[in-house]
Amino acid sequence: MNNPTWGIIATWRMAFEGVATASQELRREVSAEAAVVQAVKMVEDYPYYKSVGFGGLPNENGVVELDAAFMHGTTMEIGAVASVQDMANPILLAQRLSKERFNSFMVGEGAGAWAVANGFAEKIMLTDRARQHYEKKCRETIHRGLSPYSGHDTVGIAAVDLNGDICVGTSTSGLFMKRPGRVGDSPISGSGFYADSEIGAATATGLGEDLMKGCVSYEIVRRMGEGMSPQQAAQSTVCDLADRLLKRYGRTGDLSVVCINKDGEFGVATNIDNFSFSVATARHEPAVYVCSCDHGETTYQLASEQWLDAYQARITAPIV
Amino acid sequence: MNNPTWGIIATWRMAFEGVATASQELRREVSAEAAVVQAVKMVEDYPYYKSVGFGGLPNENGVVELDAAFMHGTTMEIGAVASVQDMANPILLAQRLSKERFNSFMVGEGAGAWAVANGFAEKIMLTDRARQHYEKKCRETIHRGLSPYSGHDTVGIAAVDLNGDICVGTSTSGLFMKRPGRVGDSPISGSGFYADSEIGAATATGLGEDLMKGCVSYEIVRRMGEGMSPQQAAQSTVCDLADRLLKRYGRTGDLSVVCINKDGEFGVATNIDNFSFSVATARHEPAVYVCSCDHGETTYQLASEQWLDAYQARITAPIV
Repeated sequence: MNNPTWGIIATWRMAFEGVATASQELRREVSAEAAVVQAVKMVEDYPYYKSVGFGGLPNENGVVELDAAFMHGTTMEIGAVASVQDMANPILLAQRLSKERFNSFMVGEGAGAWAVANGFAEKIMLTDRARQHYEKKCRETIHRGLSPYSGHDTVGIAAVDLNGDICVGTSTSGLFMKRPGRVGDSPISGSGFYADSEIGAATATGLGEDLMKGCVSYEIVRRMGEGMSPQQAAQSTVCDLADRLLKRYGRTGDLSVVCINKDGEFGVATNIDNFSFSVATARHEPAVYVCSCDHGETTYQLASEQWLDAYQARITAPIV
Repeated sequence: MNNPTWGIIATWRMAFEGVATASQELRREVSAEAAVVQAVKMVEDYPYYKSVGFGGLPNENGVVELDAAFMHGTTMEIGAVASVQDMANPILLAQRLSKERFNSFMVGEGAGAWAVANGFAEKIMLTDRARQHYEKKCRETIHRGLSPYSGHDTVGIAAVDLNGDICVGTSTSGLFMKRPGRVGDSPISGSGFYADSEIGAATATGLGEDLMKGCVSYEIVRRMGEGMSPQQAAQSTVCDLADRLLKRYGRTGDLSVVCINKDGEFGVATNIDNFSFSVATARHEPAVYVCSCDHGETTYQLASEQWLDAYQARITAPIV
């Protein structure tokens, strides 16, 4: 134990239970690696979160394809999977692959075969509820020629532990109605995640295709390393990328990030309204915040009981 | 035409013919995009280059799996494929995907199905020669319990054109004897490639698992943007990553990079001996250089006739 503090931050409300559980562990000197992996796993296992793991929304063929990554900021180890099917916990695959010197990023059928051969649990990941969402989306968009792309909420969780190790993990079912084989930023080093235990870690959610144009997570960690506060680093990186995308590409998708430094200070930035995040540190009880984006500036406030109740009602509401 | 110069640089000797051809085009105001894609395609099509495209070496099951990417530094468009089989020119898939707002990085069977549906040429990519290499490797390593991993030479090509556009493309069959589904840095934004037409472009080759720990290509472009010469940016980035890997990870794989800025100045850095690169600019006839790495410092000299002859003899020699 050589670090005086600990902390954990995650994208979205959906990570709250995992963050709250992890906060209990981190204060008991459990490692950031174990805390992050466990917290991501909790999100993967919960059937009502429709963009991660079990219950995640499928691709345009109705098949759930999952991406995940894990990075250890002390050893720089990275493991990742993309486009894997019917594996219960992609984050566990990513964690295991991070221990491999070669073949640490695996995709598609090869990744699935490796996972099965190595004893990882298989599971039918398409829930009845996800299939209902899919069928509804087909009625609403494909059959009417509208763009089907909207949901793409990755869980990204970064933690610093009392040993001074910083880790980050991501997991997602990717863009709802994506083409089979599509991969976003979540398993991509530097874009979906980055961690350096001498500095901090960052993770992103939003339109992966745009996030990977700016290597946002790497850039945020780099800016923290140059002395910026996590909030400055997150805010300036998102603003700079959004500006470049608008100028060069003519438009920008959703860009949301969270980050934490080795002192347990955190930052968040987004170019959308209603981005939520979950956080707990040695100085901060587990909580959910909801962000607003005002002229490029991110502000956030504690999620109200009303907001939290509406959230829970929404994710469990009948699909009509 | 608003740029007074042009240039093109590529990893390895294998890109020389493509670079020489592209140099004729770039001086005639052909776009960097067309020049890069055509030059990568030439490497993909040549059967004796055993780490890219047709004739590329297979995975541990004897199957050729291909990765490629394309980035346009003006629009920030990125397209990439990974783990695709039996497609003649992965770079053409990547280029086309770069025009897509969604689903621009595709892997595995989904990528293949999309490519076939969109009329891209299919081709059996495993040559007799590559199968002989594979069988020899099986005899030499797998059957004797040795690590099979050695070859992993990506072609990465970056060009600046007379219009001021800067583009970069990569293509590889990846790590020889990789596990099915393994993906390296080549299709990963920021690691295998990055381009920004206001600054320059960079591309990497070597052990993808290590290159993606440092987001090297993004970092090189960023350092050029801060005022470093291409040579300074390449050299310092490779040294910094190698140092971090040795300190944190305990070892480092091969790390080699080339870069070019908007003024047509180029840089190269490597932590190995005998890394070669191909280059041509408005001020520099097409040439192949061979690098040495002395105490972390990269030096290079024109490839001698003897070196070039030995290279050609080696890649076409009978496999015994």
